[in-house]
Amino acid sequence: MIEPKYGRLLDDFRVGDIYHHPWEVTIDDGMLAMFAASFLDLNPLYSSRRFAQELGFRDRVVHPMVMLNLALSFTVHDVSEQAIAHLAYIDLKFPNAAYSGDTLSVYSEILGVRVSESKPDRGIVHLRTTGVNQDGIVLVTFERKALIPTGKLEGRAHPTSSASDAPRDPSPSSGSLAIPIELRSEIKTPAWPGRPRGLFEDFEVGDVILHSNGHTVGESEHMQLTILTRNSHPLHFDEVYSREHSFMKTRVVEGGLVFAWVASLASRDTTANALWEIGYDKGSHPNPVLAGDTLYAASKVIEKQDRDEKTGIVQFKLVGVKNERPATLLAAGLDLFADKFEQKVFEIEREALVPNCLVKQPVRRIPDS
Amino acid sequence: MIEPKYGRLLDDFRVGDIYHHPWEVTIDDGMLAMFAASFLDLNPLYSSRRFAQELGFRDRVVHPMVMLNLALSFTVHDVSEQAIAHLAYIDLKFPNAAYSGDTLSVYSEILGVRVSESKPDRGIVHLRTTGVNQDGIVLVTFERKALIPTGKLEGRAHPTSSASDAPRDPSPSSGSLAIPIELRSEIKTPAWPGRPRGLFEDFEVGDVILHSNGHTVGESEHMQLTILTRNSHPLHFDEVYSREHSFMKTRVVEGGLVFAWVASLASRDTTANALWEIGYDKGSHPNPVLAGDTLYAASKVIEKQDRDEKTGIVQFKLVGVKNERPATLLAAGLDLFADKFEQKVFEIEREALVPNCLVKQPVRRIPDS
Amino acid sequence: MIEPKYGRLLDDFRVGDIYHHPWEVTIDDGMLAMFAASFLDLNPLYSSRRFAQELGFRDRVVHPMVMLNLALSFTVHDVSEQAIAHLAYIDLKFPNAAYSGDTLSVYSEILGVRVSESKPDRGIVHLRTTGVNQDGIVLVTFERKALIPTGKLEGRAHPTSSASDAPRDPSPSSGSLAIPIELRSEIKTPAWPGRPRGLFEDFEVGDVILHSNGHTVGESEHMQLTILTRNSHPLHFDEVYSREHSFMKTRVVEGGLVFAWVASLASRDTTANALWEIGYDKGSHPNPVLAGDTLYAASKVIEKQDRDEKTGIVQFKLVGVKNERPATLLAAGLDLFADKFEQKVFEIEREALVPNCLVKQPVRRIPDS
Repeated sequence: MIEPKYGRLLDDFRVGDIYHHPWEVTIDDGMLAMFAASFLDLNPLYSSRRFAQELGFRDRVVHPMVMLNLALSFTVHDVSEQAIAHLAYIDLKFPNAAYSGDTLSVYSEILGVRVSESKPDRGIVHLRTTGVNQDGIVLVTFERKALIPTGKLEGRAHPTSSASDAPRDPSPSSGSLAIPIELRSEIKTPAWPGRPRGLFEDFEVGDVILHSNGHTVGESEHMQLTILTRNSHPLHFDEVYSREHSFMKTRVVEGGLVFAWVASLASRDTTANALWEIGYDKGSHPNPVLAGDTLYAASKVIEKQDRDEKTGIVQFKLVGVKNERPATLLAAGLDLFADKFEQKVFEIEREALVPNCLVKQPVRRIPDS
Repeated sequence: MIEPKYGRLLDDFRVGDIYHHPWEVTIDDGMLAMFAASFLDLNPLYSSRRFAQELGFRDRVVHPMVMLNLALSFTVHDVSEQAIAHLAYIDLKFPNAAYSGDTLSVYSEILGVRVSESKPDRGIVHLRTTGVNQDGIVLVTFERKALIPTGKLEGRAHPTSSASDAPRDPSPSSGSLAIPIELRSEIKTPAWPGRPRGLFEDFEVGDVILHSNGHTVGESEHMQLTILTRNSHPLHFDEVYSREHSFMKTRVVEGGLVFAWVASLASRDTTANALWEIGYDKGSHPNPVLAGDTLYAASKVIEKQDRDEKTGIVQFKLVGVKNERPATLLAAGLDLFADKFEQKVFEIEREALVPNCLVKQPVRRIPDS
Repeated sequence: MIEPKYGRLLDDFRVGDIYHHPWEVTIDDGMLAMFAASFLDLNPLYSSRRFAQELGFRDRVVHPMVMLNLALSFTVHDVSEQAIAHLAYIDLKFPNAAYSGDTLSVYSEILGVRVSESKPDRGIVHLRTTGVNQDGIVLVTFERKALIPTGKLEGRAHPTSSASDAPRDPSPSSGSLAIPIELRSEIKTPAWPGRPRGLFEDFEVGDVILHSNGHTVGESEHMQLTILTRNSHPLHFDEVYSREHSFMKTRVVEGGLVFAWVASLASRDTTANALWEIGYDKGSHPNPVLAGDTLYAASKVIEKQDRDEKTGIVQFKLVGVKNERPATLLAAGLDLFADKFEQKVFEIEREALVPNCLVKQPVRRIPDS
């Protein structure tokens, strides 16, 4: 009788270990459509071939939330299939554009392993995960921390990669701005007749933006996205497991998807005009999300910085809440961005490259017939 | 504190205004698959590259219901995100074939604005919407009417396009038959060994066809399709909003999707052989549809007209009902096509170009091995 | 009044009849993504263009469960839309690789028709179904048996193909191993740094493997996959029909999807390294599956056979159960593979071509930056 298990327990991890995660997936238009069917983002960089090409890219750019979710989910098989919780997102970057047709593979390096002082039956694993395409170009990189039970996993089904495979620089973007090569020379200005507000000048430090629309999470919807990204943690799609082992006694929505919903709910008012999502940092999930919960988002402008004549960098604090509108929570006296409260499901810092009004908008002609 | 709002209230509309809707989306195979996963249409024009190419098209033709739903949904951000209801579809046409890979953008012209006489807190906006591809070719055009509260929207987040952008002919197909160039010369006759009934000769004016299969609407399914088409009205995917603001106190299935379900439920018996959906007219949604409702369709042949030796035009009245079979409603004494009743969720006139039996069916050889 | 019906009753079938099923569908990346979003398979042959091409294929190979589900569903319109149940899968083979972009058409030959002795109001139809691409290459072929009410169907909407269309060899793979041409010469060895266990040497005859993860079937999820594959039996997506006519009084999950879930739940521990799914045989569904059920799988190694220096053939018995873990059922004294019990939803024999350790794994270099 064999009952193969995946993921690892705390004592299976050693600092410096490198795992080449076995998933290897060609990103395709089907994947883009399934994400587009859950995460509404107005930015044509991700949806319009015409726009993306005029901006200098080869094709539509794969949405950064697709990249984060794929890379995060690929690690579960080796890292967190036994984990209790995902604790933190750190220094998430998208150094190069990903395109439909790219084949993604992902590896992780263990940066730290630490037993909890208060609860010695568990501990925290800290790792950096990097996703590369078929040519070895880094498409996504981030650190995260996960809460994992102590012990060694009996019956683990496959070996650790050898340490000699260690990448020389697992975080190639560190120290410089994670902006793809297409945006490092002069920024082009594709026509976009219906362009909404949200240029660099439109943001003021201190602005609090309550995003009006919410999104009720569908049961099939979140399971499909979990499996599509190859997340193998049964907490998200196995109700029998979840009744026994979930801290919620039922399936819990995968954190990377909550991140994607909150970011996309905020996008129409913040990053619809963004040329690039430079990065995210200091992210966490204070409370879980279940199917049927309705998510809302709020953003706060925490910093602005000119980059050149045509672009600037805007930093937001982004929060996600469930089942209450942000306005209702504010009216109840809560500070959405600083307080802890049961409806808060996500918080993170977000940095975007945004054009300013010096980017002239060419008018697009409507055809005669 | 900023709470950006979208859509418009009645007093924000002026006759002659043109809105370039900001959504710009490259249609892809993923979108086609997600529609194919909800709307069963036997016609190989939309599903088979081989068939479509032998008929003279460059590739599979994007299903007209994809085009209607995209164009309708793109308008919501500017037109109807504050609307109470969608009232009517008028003169819907598909003048040219759309293909996967086309990038769709959409604009609308306000044709009329009128306060309701009976309920002065609301009124009707009448507009024509046109969707074009990256080359300015018109792919879909229709008028519609929406019921919208009076007043002006505080905090609207972006400007109206200037009137100087007005297209010279927003309805390029008016006056002539909306048939794409590929079908204007002699009709080719691709082999189709399993071709079902439904050639021109098979229809008689007065025929009433009760389509046997229904479709129960899935909760995730309808939300995914709503978001995929970029419909931003929270009535369809935000349960917290809907409990407060929906006339049904819960999420309501987007009307364009109800249209697509009813049309596709009828398709096997009516348009499976059609060379083109020439158009739809006089459409409305007498009652709403919720997740879990089961939709059925019935068609009546209201007119037939020879076009040339090989093709004719068949006009249908199409109705959709919920939670009862059409046969049951008929047995209860209802006239499905003329009466109003609570199970009726959709009605429209439909016109299709259908080949006649002079189109010889070449036999396809089965390979030896 | 016309109420067209599809499928056939028992007396409509004659041995030797050939049906060219009318569905004709170009397989696309959207379809692959929707399957990937429900069926987790680690094998990069189906997910990675890079891997598949290094192995000698033109592109990612379409997953065999996509092919089985399409071909099976295409037959429903002609064969089983009136059926009571699907009884058996026999001699399922995938003789050639299918690729995204291939256009699939399917035909079936009636091999046997027999009235039930115990219940004379029904009988068994036995047929062989074959799916070919646009060039007539056979991509999938299988026999199945279905339980169908006696009688003749009033109002069937279209004719039987003529017997003169009979293929000379409807089962081109019979007698030889169904392995595609790309794998008949020397097997190549693509790098796969995270390659999991499961080479030929890792399996011993008699091994029982309990696959740890389950999958809770989503309501929208299973309906979308049913429609995507063009299955027109209302039992799977019409709740009004199902309340009246289903043996479960509600919608039942389509059998081909149950097959796909069970096979994919087993895949990580059995076929993750497989070069080909040679075939399945003797399959059946002892009990139905409903939305909300959680599926689990178990495999038993029943035979091993060397093929050449680099590969061998492993035969598994595969079973699927619902709502209880295989380990729980075993602990209750059941023989998962031999006994009948209410939680058992699927069983079949599975044969895979698996590389052995002589396949050297080249190390993939990680890029410097």
